[in-house]
Amino acid sequence: MSLGPVTPQQMFFSEPLPLQSGATLPEYQLTYETYGTLNAERSNAVLVCHALNASHHVAGLDERGVKGWWDNLVGPGKPLDTNRFFVIGVNNPGSCFGSTGPMHPNPTSPVPGRVWGADFPVVTVEDWVDAQARLVQRLGITQLAAVLGGSLGGMQALAWTLRHPQMLRHCIAVATAPNLSAQNIAFNEVARRAIVTDPDFHGGHFYEHGVLPKRGLRVARMVGHITYLAEDAMDTKFGRELRAAVLRYSTQEIEFQIESYLRHQGDKFAEYFDANTYLLITRALDYFDPAAAHGGDLARAFAANPATLDKRFLIVSFTTDWRFAPERSREIVKALVDNRIGVSYAEIDAPHGHDAFLLEDPRYHAVMRHYFERIAGEVQAAVPSADEGLQ
Amino acid sequence: MSLGPVTPQQMFFSEPLPLQSGATLPEYQLTYETYGTLNAERSNAVLVCHALNASHHVAGLDERGVKGWWDNLVGPGKPLDTNRFFVIGVNNPGSCFGSTGPMHPNPTSPVPGRVWGADFPVVTVEDWVDAQARLVQRLGITQLAAVLGGSLGGMQALAWTLRHPQMLRHCIAVATAPNLSAQNIAFNEVARRAIVTDPDFHGGHFYEHGVLPKRGLRVARMVGHITYLAEDAMDTKFGRELRAAVLRYSTQEIEFQIESYLRHQGDKFAEYFDANTYLLITRALDYFDPAAAHGGDLARAFAANPATLDKRFLIVSFTTDWRFAPERSREIVKALVDNRIGVSYAEIDAPHGHDAFLLEDPRYHAVMRHYFERIAGEVQAAVPSADEGLQ
Repeated sequence: MSLGPVTPQQMFFSEPLPLQSGATLPEYQLTYETYGTLNAERSNAVLVCHALNASHHVAGLDERGVKGWWDNLVGPGKPLDTNRFFVIGVNNPGSCFGSTGPMHPNPTSPVPGRVWGADFPVVTVEDWVDAQARLVQRLGITQLAAVLGGSLGGMQALAWTLRHPQMLRHCIAVATAPNLSAQNIAFNEVARRAIVTDPDFHGGHFYEHGVLPKRGLRVARMVGHITYLAEDAMDTKFGRELRAAVLRYSTQEIEFQIESYLRHQGDKFAEYFDANTYLLITRALDYFDPAAAHGGDLARAFAANPATLDKRFLIVSFTTDWRFAPERSREIVKALVDNRIGVSYAEIDAPHGHDAFLLEDPRYHAVMRHYFERIAGEVQAAVPSADEGLQ
Repeated sequence: MSLGPVTPQQMFFSEPLPLQSGATLPEYQLTYETYGTLNAERSNAVLVCHALNASHHVAGLDERGVKGWWDNLVGPGKPLDTNRFFVIGVNNPGSCFGSTGPMHPNPTSPVPGRVWGADFPVVTVEDWVDAQARLVQRLGITQLAAVLGGSLGGMQALAWTLRHPQMLRHCIAVATAPNLSAQNIAFNEVARRAIVTDPDFHGGHFYEHGVLPKRGLRVARMVGHITYLAEDAMDTKFGRELRAAVLRYSTQEIEFQIESYLRHQGDKFAEYFDANTYLLITRALDYFDPAAAHGGDLARAFAANPATLDKRFLIVSFTTDWRFAPERSREIVKALVDNRIGVSYAEIDAPHGHDAFLLEDPRYHAVMRHYFERIAGEVQAAVPSADEGLQ
């Protein structure tokens, strides 16, 4: 039931990418993976957008044997069935998993080979979607069957419908929000301050100093991780369980299992994640707000382009997600309904908080399977039959 | 309606304080303030316990003209009326506002004058209550009319009823919990890691290096502050409001007002708060769990001492407090009701989150006023009248 080993691919873009900020990314490479086979009509492609710390490696096993981050959803016979769909996973520019990012040479620098570091241009969800659209075009795909994403990935899926509506038919946005709340931004800012004030950050040019701002990254990950988990699930899993049989009465040693777990998450993260990428991606989250250009009215954002109106949407939220609560998904649904845009909405009663979108909940996966079967049926119906072809 | 200028007092204790950890605090000084007049029967005293970053300065104006942290509640004609009650505010040992703490000389150190720093013994809510009880005894008070506190102060009020039940009649615990949840501990741990991993922390002996771990303190305060505010109130107050007219597209500069507010809170806090105190106080929060010694059954904790059973309680919670939600207060109420202990419970529909306990909500203050009027009535009734005295 798994795709087995998969190999990432690279695509280079020499044409500069204009960014929302007014800056441009002069040239860039995207790392991506594909699963399944593109049909002759090139009508069965699904793009999967990643969230904060994920990558192009959506499914299958990478060269180290590590499963893709959405392997439970994507594969042969899985809800997003690679026997029927051609699935594309792509790492966004600014990330740290192969696509051009802050750790790569800055071609605009007067110092040859100097890496971007903190000078990497600030990228937005819309910039990523533009970069993804170029990749899709280069793959010879005029229209995607669907764009799918969870959390920040869901924001990208929404942005696709507003920015390149002709290039997709379905948008599937899971555990996401039409913008960040003040509290969401606040948590991001705490994480950024932890990183930026780490003396090893060196203003974002730590690469040149041979150090990594791991202290800041650890704290950033710890605070982020708390917001991904439901409070009740944390109590069920850890509660007030102690690590040792007796209390140590120490402010710095670990007393509670939850501390041990969080420190471990922080340590792991600091080993593989880039500090500048963390800043860039949390900023892209902060900035995302498609309603802003329309007086804060999301319905008007969807109405602004007639090509958006015939897209169809699946919106999924999770009851215990307090990062992007169901209320936030319902704002999206309402804006779509106000425009009479076709939308299915599922609110899944799952205990896992925001992280639920990555987990294998039977009701959640049933909703996803059903929706992709519907898309597959449309793809099938649109294929001219052999008989028709002969007439 | 204000107490006007008030003067802190000091009391020195040469008798060592045995601590829950097994260690002892060899000698210590407590800083305290009192407001109002102790009556002849010494029956109208109310002790106010402080939370994380507060102090003995509960009401009136200090030497710099700064109002006490609960000045809206405590004063002449206020809900806790200093015309009727003798109110005591005391700074806990380990804090940084005058009572013996990590920034004071360690008398057990072989180096004369060396400050405690990170060697200050770990103190618990119960240790604080024991220290407070000694102060109360020295003031010649056998029984307090009430012990009052909010948040961590509420935990101290609860601990009083379990530890020194003969020494009080009423317990008023506001916006508190019978223990911390895994999520509460997790946020504390993030704050502690930010402080401890700040290179200027120097293992808690930063005083000797002439530096302060301000970076860590700032991040600690920022994350704490988020948990004190209700998400909706944050959206109402800040929302996605920008600081400037146009976006800067920067990961390090301030874009949103909420960032500016949080950074300001962090900066202010780092100027006046001691890093070791932050560790000690968050740890005391983590450890508090009176039910733990009774198989996790809070009702049994209250039942363990017969003298606890005739105390009377006022428990107050706030609907939007997600740090110590109403559910946590209801756990306390249930344990009291299970023991047929007299308890009044008010759940105040206030928008301000955990911070509501410090604010002047009319319904909240009406509940407090009414309850203190009842206590004042009891105090009055217990006073022998002049006639009775003559017979």
